[in-house]
This record gives sequence, C-alpha cells and structure tokens, in this order.
Amino acid sequence: MAALTAALPGGRWSTEPSVLAAHATDRSGLPAQGAPAVVVFAEEVDDVRLVLRLAHAHRTPVVVRGAGTGLAGAATATGGEIVLSTARLNRILELSAPDQLAVVQPGVITAELDSAAAEHGLRYAPDPASVAISTIGGNIATNAGGLRCAKYGVTRDSVLGLDVVLADGSLLRTGRRTVKGVAGYDLTGLFVGSEGTLGVVVAATLRLRPVPRSTATLSAHFATVADAAAASSALTAAGLQPAVAELLDGANLEAIDAAQGTALRERGAAWLLVQTDGTGAEAEAALAEDVLTPFARSVRRASDVAEAERLLEVRRLALPSLERRGRVLIEDIAVPRSLLAEAVDEIAAIGRRHDVRVATMAHAGDGNLHPIFGYDGPEVPDAVTRAADEVFRLALRLGGTLTGEHGVGLLKRQWLGDELGEESLALHRRLRTLFDPGGVLNPGKLWSD
Amino acid sequence: MAALTAALPGGRWSTEPSVLAAHATDRSGLPAQGAPAVVVFAEEVDDVRLVLRLAHAHRTPVVVRGAGTGLAGAATATGGEIVLSTARLNRILELSAPDQLAVVQPGVITAELDSAAAEHGLRYAPDPASVAISTIGGNIATNAGGLRCAKYGVTRDSVLGLDVVLADGSLLRTGRRTVKGVAGYDLTGLFVGSEGTLGVVVAATLRLRPVPRSTATLSAHFATVADAAAASSALTAAGLQPAVAELLDGANLEAIDAAQGTALRERGAAWLLVQTDGTGAEAEAALAEDVLTPFARSVRRASDVAEAERLLEVRRLALPSLERRGRVLIEDIAVPRSLLAEAVDEIAAIGRRHDVRVATMAHAGDGNLHPIFGYDGPEVPDAVTRAADEVFRLALRLGGTLTGEHGVGLLKRQWLGDELGEESLALHRRLRTLFDPGGVLNPGKLWSD
Ligand SMILES: Cc1cc2nc3c(=O)[nH]c(=O)nc-3n(C[C@H](O)[C@H](O)[C@H](O)COP(=O)(O)OP(=O)(O)OC[C@H]3O[C@@H](n4cnc5c(N)ncnc54)[C@H](O)[C@@H]3O)c2cc1C
Ligand SMILES: Cc1cc2nc3c(=O)[nH]c(=O)nc-3n(C[C@H](O)[C@H](O)[C@H](O)COP(=O)(O)OP(=O)(O)OC[C@H]3O[C@@H](n4cnc5c(N)ncnc54)[C@H](O)[C@@H]3O)c2cc1C
Repeated sequence: MAALTAALPGGRWSTEPSVLAAHATDRSGLPAQGAPAVVVFAEEVDDVRLVLRLAHAHRTPVVVRGAGTGLAGAATATGGEIVLSTARLNRILELSAPDQLAVVQPGVITAELDSAAAEHGLRYAPDPASVAISTIGGNIATNAGGLRCAKYGVTRDSVLGLDVVLADGSLLRTGRRTVKGVAGYDLTGLFVGSEGTLGVVVAATLRLRPVPRSTATLSAHFATVADAAAASSALTAAGLQPAVAELLDGANLEAIDAAQGTALRERGAAWLLVQTDGTGAEAEAALAEDVLTPFARSVRRASDVAEAERLLEVRRLALPSLERRGRVLIEDIAVPRSLLAEAVDEIAAIGRRHDVRVATMAHAGDGNLHPIFGYDGPEVPDAVTRAADEVFRLALRLGGTLTGEHGVGLLKRQWLGDELGEESLALHRRLRTLFDPGGVLNPGKLWSD
Repeated sequence: MAALTAALPGGRWSTEPSVLAAHATDRSGLPAQGAPAVVVFAEEVDDVRLVLRLAHAHRTPVVVRGAGTGLAGAATATGGEIVLSTARLNRILELSAPDQLAVVQPGVITAELDSAAAEHGLRYAPDPASVAISTIGGNIATNAGGLRCAKYGVTRDSVLGLDVVLADGSLLRTGRRTVKGVAGYDLTGLFVGSEGTLGVVVAATLRLRPVPRSTATLSAHFATVADAAAASSALTAAGLQPAVAELLDGANLEAIDAAQGTALRERGAAWLLVQTDGTGAEAEAALAEDVLTPFARSVRRASDVAEAERLLEVRRLALPSLERRGRVLIEDIAVPRSLLAEAVDEIAAIGRRHDVRVATMAHAGDGNLHPIFGYDGPEVPDAVTRAADEVFRLALRLGGTLTGEHGVGLLKRQWLGDELGEESLALHRRLRTLFDPGGVLNPGKLWSD
C-alpha cells in the first residue's frame, strides 16, 4: 500500500471511505462484503503495470473494474484488496473506416464507440442493454451479449486483438488487425470472458461493421409463451435470421403495464419483438410476418423508425418496471433453441413451487433466457436461492448453460463445476495458475479457492 | 510399438512401407523427411486414448492426421513417430435441424457434412477449397477458411464445442450445444487452430446455418490489380458485405487461359468474382454493380445459377492451372483490407526481383492473399525461399499475418516468433507444456524445440 501510493501520482488513487464503498460491489445485487483497501484509477498503461508488479511481489489481490455494471459479482472487492479501475483509460486510439476497425482503451463506454463509428457509417455490433454505462473492458472480460447478437454475434466475435498486462506486470499483445489469422494459439479468445482472472485488458482492436441499410420491425402478441416460442422456432425453421428476436412473458407485460400505463398483457400472455435488417430487411420481415401469423393473436409491422424505436424502448423498460416492484435477482441461462418453450414453462413452475415472483425475458433467437426473480427486503430470501438453484439444474438438464452472457463471478461459482465437470475445472485451475502463479487476479471469482 | 500393436485390434494399424510413405507428408510440397514408425487408424475414441496413453508413457511423438490435405506441413511425420489417423472416425453422430447443429466425429469429410445438412435446408458454412477431400478434424485444427468466410466466418465461428483426448489419454469436453455461453474459459477456441499440438479432437458440435434463399453473382474485369483492389475497397466502403469476393491477378488468368483455353487475360489484368446472398441478394448485387462499374473494364451479372457455378469453377481452376506449369509453393498472408492493392503489387515486385514466377489470388473480402510461387524440379529453389521470406516480411510490415488460414506447421515455424514476439512465444510454449508436459503431440510443429 505504501509502495503503491508513493509510486502513483496523486489523484490516481483513493482510500476515501465513500470511494471504497462505491467500488465494493457491482449490479448483481450481491451485498458488499466489506470494502477494498484502495481504489487505483489508472490513467496510463504504466499505472496498470505498476499496480500488478507491486501486487504480484506482495501477493495482494487485485480486482480489475470497468463501470461496475456486471450482474455476476465478478467485480466485487473486499478487505485488503486493490480495486484497479480502467475507467479513465477511455480514449479511442484509432478508428479506421477502410479497415472497419477501432483500437480503443478499455474504459471507453460501449455506446461512445458505437457513436464514433456511426460518423463513418459503421457500428460496434455488440449492444448489451447496458451500452450507455458499461465499458469495453468489462464487455470483453464478460464476453457480453446484447439484442443484436442473434445475428451479429457476441463481444468475442468483434474482438480481433488485445493488449493485456499480465499478472507480473508484463505486457502481452495478442491477435491482429486483419480479419483472418491463424498464427499461433487463440489467446485473444482466452482472455475474452475471463472475468479479470487472466490479465488486464489495456487496449483492444475491435471489428466494426456497416450500419444496415434498413430495418423492419414486427410486434406479435400470443396467447401463451408456448405459442410465442413455437413461432420463434418456426422463424428459425424457415431459415430466417432476424437481427433481434426478444420474448417477454406475461409477468413482464404485467409489470410494464403497471409501471408505464400500457395495456400489453390483455393482448396475450407473451410478446415477441422481431427486427430484420440489411438490404433484404423488408422482404425478410414480410416472410417473418407470414411465419408468425398462424401462431399469434396479432402481428403488427411498425410503420416507421419512430414506432420501431418505441417498441424497442418497451422491451428495455421490462427490467426497470420489474425493479419498481422490489428487488430483483437476474439469472441468465441458455438452452438449445428448440427447448425455449419448455424452459420458460419450467421456470414459471419453479416460481410457483417456491412461491416466488419470476418473470422471464428471452433473447429468443439464441435461446438465452433471463428469469428475473423478485423479492422484498435487503437479503435474497432462501426461497429465491432455492428457486435459482433449480433454474441452474434445469439449464443443465436441458443441455444448456448457467450463463449465456453475464458470467460466473461470485454469483454462479458454486455451480460452475456442475457444468464443466471435474476434468475441465481442474484444467481451468491449471490455466489460471499458469497466467497468475501468485493468485493475485480476482481471487475467489469463478470458483472458490 | 510392441505394446501398441498388441493392444490394438488388427486392421487398425499398419507398418507397410507404402502406407508409412503415404502418411509422411501433406500437400504443402514439403518433401518427406523419412517415414513414421506406424500408422494407427483409430475406429473408436478408445483407440485414440490408448495410443496417447502409451505414447505419453513412452514419450513417443504422435502426429494426428485427418486427410493430409494441409498446406503448412503440420501433419508431416518422420522416423520413430506414430501417425494417428482420425479419418475412420467418420460418423455424423447427430444432426438437429431445430437447433441448427451437428455433432460429428473428426474424420467426416467437410462436404459430406454439408450435404447431410442440405437435406434440412441447412449448410455447414466453412468451405475451404478442399471441402471434398479435407476432414472436419483437420479443418478445426487449422481453423480453415474458405470462400464464404468473408460473410460467414472461419471454422472457429462454427464450432460450439469439442470432445478432446488430451496428451495423457484423458477425455475433455469443452463448449456447449447452445448458441451462447460464457461459463469458464474459451477452451474450444484454444483447440481450434492448434494444429494437433494440444489434443486430439474426437468429436465436435458444429453450428449449421440456413442455406440462403437466393444468390447473385457478378464477374468484373479490370485493367490493373490496383483497380480491382480499389473496387473491392469501395464495396466495403459502401457497406456491402458479399458472401464471396475473390480476386485473381493477371498471372492467374494467363495460367487458366493456357490450361483451359479461356480468354480471360485479354479482358484485363485482374478479375473479381463477387457473390451476394440472402433475401437481399438481388438488391445487394445491383448496388455492388453500381459500385464496381466506375473501376472496371466490364461488369457482368450471371444470368442464372449455372453461369454462377461456372464462374466459381473458373476461380477454383486457378490453382490446378498453375500446377500444370510446374510445382507450386502456396503462401497465405493476410493484410488489413485497405492494403490489398499494395500487397499484390509488392508481391509481384518481389517475384520480379528474385526472378521467380508468382501469381496471387486473394479472398479480397478479408484481405487474405495466396501468392503462389512456381518452380521446376523436386526441391524448392533458394530464390523461391528468399522471395517467400520477403513476402512474410511484407505481411508483417503491413500489419498483417504470416498465415490467414493454412496454419504454421513446419513451413512457417521459423517466422512465427517474428509475428508473435518473444513474450507471446514464451507464453505459447508454457501453454503447450501445460497441455502436453511430455511433448508428445506433434513436436517440432509451430516452432522447433
Ligand atoms: C441495466 C443493465 C443491463 C445489462 N444488460 C446486459 C446485456 O444485455 N448483456 C450482457 O451481456 N450484460 C448485460 N449487463 C451486464 C453488464 O453490463 C456487462 O457484464 C458488462 O459487460 C460489464 O461491463 P463493466 O464495464 O460494467 O464491467 P465491470 O462490472 O466493472 O466488470 C465485469 C468483469 O470484467 C472485469 N473487467 C473489467 N474491466 C476489465 C479490464 N480492463 N481488463 C480485464 N478485466 C476487466 C472485471 O474484473 C469483472 O470480472 C447489464 C447490466 C445492467 C446493469
Ligand atoms: C486443393 C486444396 C485447397 C485448399 N483450400 C483451402 C482453403 O480454401 N482454405 C483453407 O483454410 N485451407 C485450404 N487447404 C488446406 C487444407 O485443406 C486445410 O488445412 C484442411 O483443414 C486440412 O484438413 P485435413 O483433414 O486434410 O488435415 P491434415 O492435413 O491431415 O492435418 C492438418 C492439421 O490438423 C491436425 N489434425 C488433423 N486431424 C486432427 C484431429 N482429429 N485432432 C487434432 N488435430 C488434428 C494435424 O495434426 C495437422 O496439424 C487446401 C488444400 C488443398 C490441397
């Protein structure tokens, strides 16, 4: 600590209790378990290297942090730990329209990169619902998904290369500036989704894509979630690949109605929002409309961009509307697409069995479901924990995963071994030790030691 | 050896000199440096495990082999080594249309999977020009690209999960059946492109995609390669993303004319073949035609599928036509897309400087170039080696890579350190040792020991 604060320029670290408290937990709802010893705000790559060199030498745990919007408890910090914030490393270093790529520091806010790209008719495809508040570094470390990933892939699919400070303070460059490349192992992919346990991302070369020429948006209401899921499967079976396919169940619609004064629930117990894009957007939407109609109570094509934007806004209002009713625990399982209906129905049954409120929203295009458990009071009640546990078991039973996009962190670490199996978990441990022999990077996250 | 042949059922191994000779090298043009001691034809996963357990115990090198169509010398084997062929592990274990995935053994021929998928209106997107002869296991181990990867990505983008036998014979399962998932590190990605050095793929869960509803094909001739490259960049700048964008230089066209009796070269010194697909294929081709026209001597839209097929066939004839003139050394650099013209021109200049024949074909959509050096006689002449060396340096100088899709193997191992840097190469070594502490898997490939 003394070495650290002596070596860093003033203003780049803080031990203010309010600052420490603000960096103790993330948006997972996990209550803070104490507070870190110090928060370092790196402004140069050398600050990151310095912190890691010292931490490595003194075996002090370091929790890297972007914006702290994570939902898995991966950026939480407790007594004695150093929080290393990369939020001030927030410059876009290069934006090349001809090569459709950007080189950015990790603290750049996702939406800011997207806006900068838009000036060149380009965009950064991964769009977690937190785009306006999350950082690229956090997106990379969690391999964040988003609405458009049904068609454009997750964060991993947009990362070409990385600069990473390793646990001992050394600097590693991975990947490339070219679209393709197979020289050596895919270290870039290994760092993506590693939740701050293998190294600190200090720069990223990211792929940009053209903004689609047009979009078309459909809003469909269904009597049951099963009907909506069947309709979504029928889109897949018809060979259509919408850019967005979002499903909300009746509990979500009720919450939105109560909070926003809409009347969605009376149109049916499930809502599907579909957006096609590209040169064929109109033709594809027409095909999609034909596919959805036999399953739906109503299907409506948005008449203009403003109406489409309003529909997307309604989708985004689901979570805030649920939060009006009390606290929420947000889960994130994914199942094979064909089992979407079964998963949603089972989740509702789990909620009834444990007598807890649950609403499920799904990125239907890729089988990623967010069951949102509601509760009152500061602590997650046992019934909710038990219900969440059943949801994880359901995901594994259906051949799915504990986490489609939010990550493992602290929140799901006790189930990780169930998904990976012992052989794989042991290999994970050995890999982590190879990158971080002193165990300083985010200890206790992913699995407990 | 004695333990191996005693433990394996007869018919699953051979020490016949002709069989050994047939498994000593690949299609890279590297002459065989001796022959392996035995070739094992695994018919069950347990055969693979057995071979690795014994090899691990006795520290005997194992070269995994698919179809041996590799172009990097990654499947070559010399004295004392065991060749472990996965070619007979060739069953499609599952094909799920609703989940758009297949589970296959590694010896399945790429085109056979594609045909099986076609019965469900689906396809396996990665289409190396060797689809008819290469195996899925080899494609995965080299992260093979293909014509369609401009739009649909490389092999990596279609691999959801793997079953891998590790160096000690243990079995690891990675990845998942779901489209998305972030539980644990991306081990799947680490095995993809690892050229048989980290483990033996014994099963793969692969993503399938709908066959596009329609395609449209453009054939454009240009006065110079620079014009063709500028036209290709203009397509990118216009926000168009063709599924195929293949460029052949004048030397290729001359070779095709000589071998096939066509008259392509007189239409210009560069040819660009562009295919759009999807619901918007026609509209996108119309836009592309407008973009190409100002740069081109002529642009023609294929009038039907048969004509489009003929054009693709002409593209595929380039390599065989060059091979009619003598032996070839096929290189595989990639550069940032904006530097395509510069790269092609520099390659031609390198050829002139060293007085060697060189023809360049490029996957223009992603900046991946194949300079094909021609020579006579059995050994690669020094002038060709020197020219190839200059090509690699050119790739690195332009911010590119030694290999876009073929891999490193033996052929490029001496340059790998130049691309990765010492820090990264050292990490590569440590990773490989972690997976294969006895150093039995494909020793000498990627780098020399
Ligand atoms: C309203 C809301 C909506 C959301 N919607 C989505 C969604 O649609 N899809 C989705 O995937 N997620 C979503 N999230 C979750 C969250 O926004 C993402 O996980 C995001 O990627 C976290 O970014 P961050 O900068 O806040 O990272 P943090 O929360 O600060 O950190 C997350 C993890 O990244 C690591 N990390 C951060 N920076 C670095 C770095 N420079 N180097 C190495 N490791 C680093 C941390 O150690 C930690 O393990 C949502 C969250 C909220 C609050
Ligand atoms: C005419 C022609 C055209 C080609 N076109 C292309 C092209 O367009 N794009 C492209 O990318 N490549 C192309 N190639 C190169 C080659 O076809 C690919 O590299 C292909 O992926 C190799 O597959 P294979 O089964 O022949 O593998 P092999 O050559 O047998 O082996 C290649 C590598 O994979 C490893 N391997 C094989 N099976 C396994 C397994 N089960 N587990 C672990 N490792 C394994 C081997 O050890 C070796 O390192 C072409 C080759 C030819 C001859």
